[in-house]
Amino acid sequence: MRRKIVLATGAFDLLHYGHLNFLEEAKRAGGRNARLIVIVARDKTVEARKGKRPIVREDQRRALIEALKPVDDAILGFEDMNYSAVIEKLKPDVIAVGYDQSDIKRAVQEIIKKKGLKIKVFEAKKLSADDIDSSSKIKRRVIELERNNS
Amino acid sequence: MRRKIVLATGAFDLLHYGHLNFLEEAKRAGGRNARLIVIVARDKTVEARKGKRPIVREDQRRALIEALKPVDDAILGFEDMNYSAVIEKLKPDVIAVGYDQSDIKRAVQEIIKKKGLKIKVFEAKKLSADDIDSSSKIKRRVIELERNNS
Repeated sequence: MRRKIVLATGAFDLLHYGHLNFLEEAKRAGGRNARLIVIVARDKTVEARKGKRPIVREDQRRALIEALKPVDDAILGFEDMNYSAVIEKLKPDVIAVGYDQSDIKRAVQEIIKKKGLKIKVFEAKKLSADDIDSSSKIKRRVIELERNNS
Repeated sequence: MRRKIVLATGAFDLLHYGHLNFLEEAKRAGGRNARLIVIVARDKTVEARKGKRPIVREDQRRALIEALKPVDDAILGFEDMNYSAVIEKLKPDVIAVGYDQSDIKRAVQEIIKKKGLKIKVFEAKKLSADDIDSSSKIKRRVIELERNNS
């Protein structure tokens, strides 16, 4: 049986347990021996979407993601390439989205429907509320602790 | 040939590229097929040493370190066990220290000398100055960006 390709994407600024959990779930969604390819968003893309540059440079964000055991390949986002072109290029069997990626989920589902593709969309669950599972939470804690210490 | 055991330790709060670089260098220091064991400092230990609790809980810091490809085992620090007892328990061939762990280096070298042990101490190099290679740098950038946005 051909290895299923799972595709996931994200900025992965300030790598945390929530990211790992998402990528492990994504890999499992492809079944035994799946290949997990992660597209790491470019600095420019993050800036355009969120209005500010990430804390960590794109090459270092990519290297850290590729160093994670569930990840087979981590590649930097394609400049001037939309979701549709990426899907055509990488031909994933599964596209995994995080609980906070509903915009990506919608965009991908539209493409799948429009083109009649056989791609499963898998949505990872959110961790429990007291977990450090988002970069925003980490940033808030850094700022809180800084205030308490000054 | 027996697999060489390399031991490394750290808090690894806010995982970054510098950590990965350190662990990859540590693993290489043990030669081909080395086994890298990483001791992740307990929340209590970090608090006692640095005067503040880490941002990320010990179990999540440990899980992230163990998810890195160069790492074979990541274990939480032993409470009430000093370096000497840890060395006796894990019997490393190499102890790897980061460029910012001169206190650990000194303590370990003293034990090795005192007990006449055959353990190599390997010191990892610092990344170049413009790299995000320390948790303090990440925290400073978080706070800077926050100020610019408010």
